[in-house]
Amino acid sequence: MAPQLRRDPIVNRWVIISEGRAKRPMTPWIRPETTHNVFCPFCEGNESATPPETLSYRPNGSLPDGPGWTLRAVGNKFPALEGKGSAKEEGDDLFRSVTGVGKHEVIIETPSHDEELADLSEERVADLFNSARRRIIDFKKDERLLCVQFFKNHGHTAGASLEHSHSQIIAMPVISKQLEEKLAGARRKYDEAGVCVYCDIMKRELKNKERVIEENRDFVALSPFAPRFSFETWILPKKHGPNFEMADPEATRTLAQMYKSMVMRINSLLDRPPYNMTMHTAPFGMEGDMSFHWHIEMWPVTGKVAGFEWGSGFHINSMPPEQAAETMRKVKLK
Amino acid sequence: MAPQLRRDPIVNRWVIISEGRAKRPMTPWIRPETTHNVFCPFCEGNESATPPETLSYRPNGSLPDGPGWTLRAVGNKFPALEGKGSAKEEGDDLFRSVTGVGKHEVIIETPSHDEELADLSEERVADLFNSARRRIIDFKKDERLLCVQFFKNHGHTAGASLEHSHSQIIAMPVISKQLEEKLAGARRKYDEAGVCVYCDIMKRELKNKERVIEENRDFVALSPFAPRFSFETWILPKKHGPNFEMADPEATRTLAQMYKSMVMRINSLLDRPPYNMTMHTAPFGMEGDMSFHWHIEMWPVTGKVAGFEWGSGFHINSMPPEQAAETMRKVKLK
Repeated sequence: MAPQLRRDPIVNRWVIISEGRAKRPMTPWIRPETTHNVFCPFCEGNESATPPETLSYRPNGSLPDGPGWTLRAVGNKFPALEGKGSAKEEGDDLFRSVTGVGKHEVIIETPSHDEELADLSEERVADLFNSARRRIIDFKKDERLLCVQFFKNHGHTAGASLEHSHSQIIAMPVISKQLEEKLAGARRKYDEAGVCVYCDIMKRELKNKERVIEENRDFVALSPFAPRFSFETWILPKKHGPNFEMADPEATRTLAQMYKSMVMRINSLLDRPPYNMTMHTAPFGMEGDMSFHWHIEMWPVTGKVAGFEWGSGFHINSMPPEQAAETMRKVKLK
Repeated sequence: MAPQLRRDPIVNRWVIISEGRAKRPMTPWIRPETTHNVFCPFCEGNESATPPETLSYRPNGSLPDGPGWTLRAVGNKFPALEGKGSAKEEGDDLFRSVTGVGKHEVIIETPSHDEELADLSEERVADLFNSARRRIIDFKKDERLLCVQFFKNHGHTAGASLEHSHSQIIAMPVISKQLEEKLAGARRKYDEAGVCVYCDIMKRELKNKERVIEENRDFVALSPFAPRFSFETWILPKKHGPNFEMADPEATRTLAQMYKSMVMRINSLLDRPPYNMTMHTAPFGMEGDMSFHWHIEMWPVTGKVAGFEWGSGFHINSMPPEQAAETMRKVKLK
């Protein structure tokens, strides 16, 4: 296929799909050595090394901040944003700042250093989404905060500073740039055509099938038309709604099944690569705005983002999404 | 300093300045081994391993595509965009694509594998900017193309797939997302207040001094108010103008001095780190639009961009720019 530019239908970001770039000589990816011999604050027994837990799953009724858990949410010891004071805005039209109020928590997904998300049962992956929902609902009570970013960095190259499997939630006093762009794109389509752009995409993709990876009762996983990254995958809920935390709790289990399936597929294809997951859910107080549709985006970290990408805001992707979807569909899950 | 959110005055991107994040335990950065024993297509004598040169500096009058040069511009062997055919737009409002026409060239900055940009004389760094200018002027003749991205990835972690010192230019048939945002931000300020936002920033920064790193006859280097990256640096021309390639050629030498100085400063502070440079210059055909002001942005690659950054479009930076500027100012240049 000759190089092609493709436009993301929501945020109008163009990507360059260029298969030829894959032929470049590349240094092979080397998995960093495991750190399971180093002291890990996320391991069972080391609970005192983290800030106090804000939520935990303790099937045997053990006490908070001690052993006996299957999942723990705790404050981030090195928070990007901290909770104190008011969200004071200062400065003028040129140099403007806001006090860095907010929340930054870590969800430790397993007590064991040697388990990763793909090793967990679907019930336990569902616990991860349920705990994210509960923490988000709690964060919403803080009137200083406007939106939340739920995300996962798996592996050093994907930005994880600790190896032990975990996800993170950051709640912020301003609406994120990415969310503003998505809201504006979805709103434009909604105002013009009276339809949700994500529903529209799903309908088209399910009819065409070419970029669909998997479908279950409640979710569709697909390779988006204009992916920034090789094997970038979107998980879209079939039921329209702006907020993850307001979605039907019944669907958490099918979400867990789909998410785990996508991680297993990239693990199989790329020898357990580093990866990122990001969830996009409407700002606090926009639960009634029907133009947005919450969703997940995820991708293995296979290349470097560099001067061109930062300078242009565009991405170069050597893997056409049709080929990515076909490859991912064909993976045999054990 | 307590965490703070700061807004970029041009593109309205917020960044989180959080010094506490610097205390996280981090895997130390390990310099990859040099590849000077491996065949390098950019080394003198290996000219036949690259596409034909489009420009070269040959002080001794040697013949094209043979040895005897100090700088060579060549086509990228694995171009992101290729030059053939027309820029045909296809699709509908949901899935839209454009033929990947464009130019992708490499400027090899030195015939020697063991020299890097900071080792070159100012005259030779000026040759780099002069060659970029000449290539951009040539690309502008191609009516299919709308804008250009001139950039440098230095070091493997910064995205360089080859170690030998080089920069790159990509010319595209659509205007980049980043450039559109910068143009819109500058235009808004120009329409509202009748001033160029970059001129305004420079005036404020030169008065305040706190974030200024260095100043010469034609350029100011500063740590921007809301930097995405630790030690992010902007180089702004004092003389207002939208296009780099239309700027006074006399200023190329002072630009080279400033750029080299910034690279030497980060080399001294961070033990020759990987780094990125991106140049932002107005789209082709907008030479008369006085609302924009061309400039350079550069930063050492000191951390990982991960789920939070991709999900939110925000950045977390543990180095306040006032501190970065002070540290960079204090470097003694040999």
